[in-house]
Amino acid sequence: MGKRNLYLKTTPVEEAKTIYLEALKKVWEPEYETVPVIEACKRVTRHAVYAKNSSPLYNASAMDGIAVISARTYGASETKPVRLKEGEDFVVVDTGDPIHHPFDAVIMAEDLLETEKEDEVEITASVAAWQHVRPVGEDIVAGEMILPSCHKIRPIDVGVLLSAGILEIEVVRRPMVTIFPTGTEIIEPGEAIQEGSIIESNTRMFEQMVLEQGGLAKRCPILEDDYDKILKEVKQAVAGADMVLINAGSSAGRDDYTVHVLRELGEVLVHGVAIKPGKPVILAIVDHKPVIGLPGYPVSAYIAFENFVAPVLAMMGQLPVKTDQEAEAVISRRMVSSLKHKEYVRIKAGVVGGRMVAAPLARGAGAAMSLVRADGFCIIDQNSEGVEAGEKVKISLYRDPQEIANTVVVTGSHDLILDVAADLMPLLYSGMHLSSTHVGSMGGLMALKRVEAHIAPIHLLDETDGTYNDSYVRRLFQEPVAVVTGVQRIQGIMVKKGNPLGIRGIEDLKSCRFVNRQRGAGTRLLLDYQMKKAGILPKMITGYDREASTHMAVAALVASDSADAGMGIFSAAQSMGLDFIPVGEEWYEFAIPEVFLSLPHVQAFLEVLKSSRFAEELKKLGGYGMEKTGELRWIR
Amino acid sequence: MGKRNLYLKTTPVEEAKTIYLEALKKVWEPEYETVPVIEACKRVTRHAVYAKNSSPLYNASAMDGIAVISARTYGASETKPVRLKEGEDFVVVDTGDPIHHPFDAVIMAEDLLETEKEDEVEITASVAAWQHVRPVGEDIVAGEMILPSCHKIRPIDVGVLLSAGILEIEVVRRPMVTIFPTGTEIIEPGEAIQEGSIIESNTRMFEQMVLEQGGLAKRCPILEDDYDKILKEVKQAVAGADMVLINAGSSAGRDDYTVHVLRELGEVLVHGVAIKPGKPVILAIVDHKPVIGLPGYPVSAYIAFENFVAPVLAMMGQLPVKTDQEAEAVISRRMVSSLKHKEYVRIKAGVVGGRMVAAPLARGAGAAMSLVRADGFCIIDQNSEGVEAGEKVKISLYRDPQEIANTVVVTGSHDLILDVAADLMPLLYSGMHLSSTHVGSMGGLMALKRVEAHIAPIHLLDETDGTYNDSYVRRLFQEPVAVVTGVQRIQGIMVKKGNPLGIRGIEDLKSCRFVNRQRGAGTRLLLDYQMKKAGILPKMITGYDREASTHMAVAALVASDSADAGMGIFSAAQSMGLDFIPVGEEWYEFAIPEVFLSLPHVQAFLEVLKSSRFAEELKKLGGYGMEKTGELRWIR
Repeated sequence: MGKRNLYLKTTPVEEAKTIYLEALKKVWEPEYETVPVIEACKRVTRHAVYAKNSSPLYNASAMDGIAVISARTYGASETKPVRLKEGEDFVVVDTGDPIHHPFDAVIMAEDLLETEKEDEVEITASVAAWQHVRPVGEDIVAGEMILPSCHKIRPIDVGVLLSAGILEIEVVRRPMVTIFPTGTEIIEPGEAIQEGSIIESNTRMFEQMVLEQGGLAKRCPILEDDYDKILKEVKQAVAGADMVLINAGSSAGRDDYTVHVLRELGEVLVHGVAIKPGKPVILAIVDHKPVIGLPGYPVSAYIAFENFVAPVLAMMGQLPVKTDQEAEAVISRRMVSSLKHKEYVRIKAGVVGGRMVAAPLARGAGAAMSLVRADGFCIIDQNSEGVEAGEKVKISLYRDPQEIANTVVVTGSHDLILDVAADLMPLLYSGMHLSSTHVGSMGGLMALKRVEAHIAPIHLLDETDGTYNDSYVRRLFQEPVAVVTGVQRIQGIMVKKGNPLGIRGIEDLKSCRFVNRQRGAGTRLLLDYQMKKAGILPKMITGYDREASTHMAVAALVASDSADAGMGIFSAAQSMGLDFIPVGEEWYEFAIPEVFLSLPHVQAFLEVLKSSRFAEELKKLGGYGMEKTGELRWIR
Repeated sequence: MGKRNLYLKTTPVEEAKTIYLEALKKVWEPEYETVPVIEACKRVTRHAVYAKNSSPLYNASAMDGIAVISARTYGASETKPVRLKEGEDFVVVDTGDPIHHPFDAVIMAEDLLETEKEDEVEITASVAAWQHVRPVGEDIVAGEMILPSCHKIRPIDVGVLLSAGILEIEVVRRPMVTIFPTGTEIIEPGEAIQEGSIIESNTRMFEQMVLEQGGLAKRCPILEDDYDKILKEVKQAVAGADMVLINAGSSAGRDDYTVHVLRELGEVLVHGVAIKPGKPVILAIVDHKPVIGLPGYPVSAYIAFENFVAPVLAMMGQLPVKTDQEAEAVISRRMVSSLKHKEYVRIKAGVVGGRMVAAPLARGAGAAMSLVRADGFCIIDQNSEGVEAGEKVKISLYRDPQEIANTVVVTGSHDLILDVAADLMPLLYSGMHLSSTHVGSMGGLMALKRVEAHIAPIHLLDETDGTYNDSYVRRLFQEPVAVVTGVQRIQGIMVKKGNPLGIRGIEDLKSCRFVNRQRGAGTRLLLDYQMKKAGILPKMITGYDREASTHMAVAALVASDSADAGMGIFSAAQSMGLDFIPVGEEWYEFAIPEVFLSLPHVQAFLEVLKSSRFAEELKKLGGYGMEKTGELRWIR
């Protein structure tokens, strides 16, 4: 069975963070460097900064006009103007020009009356001493504190520092982070892919996350799983960096050497944290420097970085941790969690009926796309068993709340055309977005009922009369609902190129490895209807219980020979290079409650459906009938 | 009188913006470039991006354990374990290893029972097909849309793009902005300063603002006010850049050539905008490219950039405009505004008694330090005549609201020790801040009464008995107020080094140019008291009515020979190298209403007062007595 580590213990997140940061503070010393002010933006000041010179440097005119001796203007009025002579009583000045004794005030050009003489003007009001004169130091006084210690320099600060005569500034040195990808199965992006290969991508994400938190990053070539090599490289890296990250090998598998290497080189303070995803984290100190082992699953890697690497970088850079924006939302589905860990559930957020609604996404640690699709997280505390549907929760958003407010929330059956519409929305209607979650047709209608979505894409066959969608909507809703036609599409059986098993129809599914769609999916209802007609029972089909949740996921399983056949739409088969045996046509449509129909982003979506760009893209995908696209009928 | 432009007309802000952006959209074409994905973070996608390969690339084990044939595990139970043989019934797998036919499920290592044979294990439960197997494409399916068009790439996107086999990506080209500082009076930072020189700093601020908005910046050497030179340089710059900024010369003064140059080279769409500060803006198009003339005063420059340059960069980069965070606040002072313009008033924000309070700062266009000190803006619409004290207003914040919530709001008399305390707060108490506004002692007590500040620094002499502060506090407050001693400090007359006029006391102020403090300032009360004792009337002192609002501002006027004498504290005189004639000692103390005393940031401030670091810094400044610093007495 090979050698494995003891199964790792788990430390609660906050405890792990405290243990580690406290230990680091004892051994780590901040470092500083002097940089030119013109390159100091976003850096953090070491000391308070004091102005070297005042600004303005002298008494300066605040206007274009003439500098005068105020005493000589006394008594001037509309009826008794006072005449002033250039050189004697005034000098012409522009904004910023110095004002010299005996001149002590400025009159604006607009307030002067011309006279018959070139060098004389008249004024009709007296002026107070120091009118329109910016006194020396009005803006900045030499010797005053301009910026405090520990201040992150902004563009305006750069301007003021230069005005105050400061050319160089001492700032906190940016921490240099060396990052090692490890693993014998790992390949560089672009290298030839073989079965068992995993494309290395986490460390490239880390590089960018380090930059965002104010550090500098150096990503090294991939290290294979070799104890001595890892030991040698990490030891050398620690000598030249402020922090080292190792990805992955942080778990307790046979080839997970990271923890052993770090125990040999220094001290491992924590191995395993009660966080999900993200558990296999190693927090170590080697030669007074932080060395962190991060898990290999991309979502675990991301969450572990945010929780443990970012705070260390913040400490080193003397910056606050970059945080997501917090908001309150109603959660759309029950989420059960274990008391064993703090859990980060990715969510899609939308504003529906005036409330922020958060829909939980896939919870697997490997689902990197769920991080891309998500708008943020709902964090379930370790001491909570989860939250009920409809409960109010705190969410942290990494997408702009303004953008979320302008997003149509589409929940229901999946089709590739939703991606096309989502892509076209902001292109055709600036600032408008579409976000879709795939829960099947019935799931979509239920989301509409719970006021958690604006639109439900559905394709629900009524077995009694062969019609689509209307009877389901009528049964579920009291209030008027618009049904807008999306496309007529072809459903069928997807099989490998060349159809090696010679599948011709539903009947032949009994003799192959099938993969089904999830319960509530319209495609599954269609299969069930066809099976019933043919007298086929679920137990007769191997894999009837094996579920995938999108057309593309089914197609991918067939393409990779993990299954022989699956039901789905033509465009998915075409996109994966599969053969396709048509089973029937169906109507893929959009149910929209009356209250949402007039929303500007919902209207924008309906316009997108009818646009020529949309039609062009669907033609490329193939298998879609668009004669009735955009037609609206009311179900009351 | 020299040649001037006609006085410039002003266009309302939104109208100017619309005119300009619409005109640009007609002539300007977006440009794109292909970059490696590992360098694409923060860039904006041109097209939707589709996955090249799936992830995982194959059916993969989701656990460390053994891969089994699920059918062979049927019937296993606690009482009737099933025995499996390596090679025949199972193979050992680690997380991520491929699962090959006929194996179709994984059992975790923890669920295996060892047997007497090395190559045999027992299990006590059957497993379903595909348990703990990540199907091919579970995360990413080849052909599916990963990112939409117009998407700003984040670190997680970089990871997923690489996993999906994408190495290069087409993105919007970053706009290149060439920036010209102009003006014969302008000098480079570090050059020898002469009277009349202005240190060039605006364009260095612009450089950083361009970077923040996603552009690239090239700052050119200073151009003198020479029509032909400016013409030649701008013409050449337009050919090589996407946008050109010219600072300043955008007004209508004698040497303001920018508008004439731009009229010769292209079309000037707007000259002068109804915005304050920021009016002298020129919006031009030369050779299909935006060329913008920005005003010279730093605050005007900043506000004009935010309003006109940032939106153009956003359009070119296909990014949203970087916006400040909005909040609601109670305004602490009446602000009158004219219907002639939209006005940007800089404000300091604080949370006092559960409300966000905004205190307006200096409104001058030249007050760059007010931008540094401010937390954000209160924007008064062009069609508003202003807001009343206590009114609720929208503010936009460029400081972190979390930081603002942890800030002690100090309003009242000014002393350099407030800067020292503000500097030490976050150093000694992480995350705690102090923000001070200088409105004089009486102004501070009034702010406390209106619940707009936590602490008022005061030094108010009671003429009837020579005591400090208590009688004023008692008269104004019903509720208990703590008075905490700050320092005993020496007030006196500040005169030029060597005391050329031989000033020995109050009496001698009659024969010199004086500069006073503002009404309500404790220092002015002290002067009035001393004048009364000596029988001196205000009209006997030249400059009694000339006001400056801080000790340092008074000191700067004396140092620059703009005045001969002013009243102030020893540390200010010392900091500006002035001579000092002591007039008396006084108590500079902190009034703190009981309700605020227990706030953690107020407590942190009191600890800072008593810290050894604070004492050290005050020793350096000089002139402070610290025997009673930190002592608290109650006024009821």
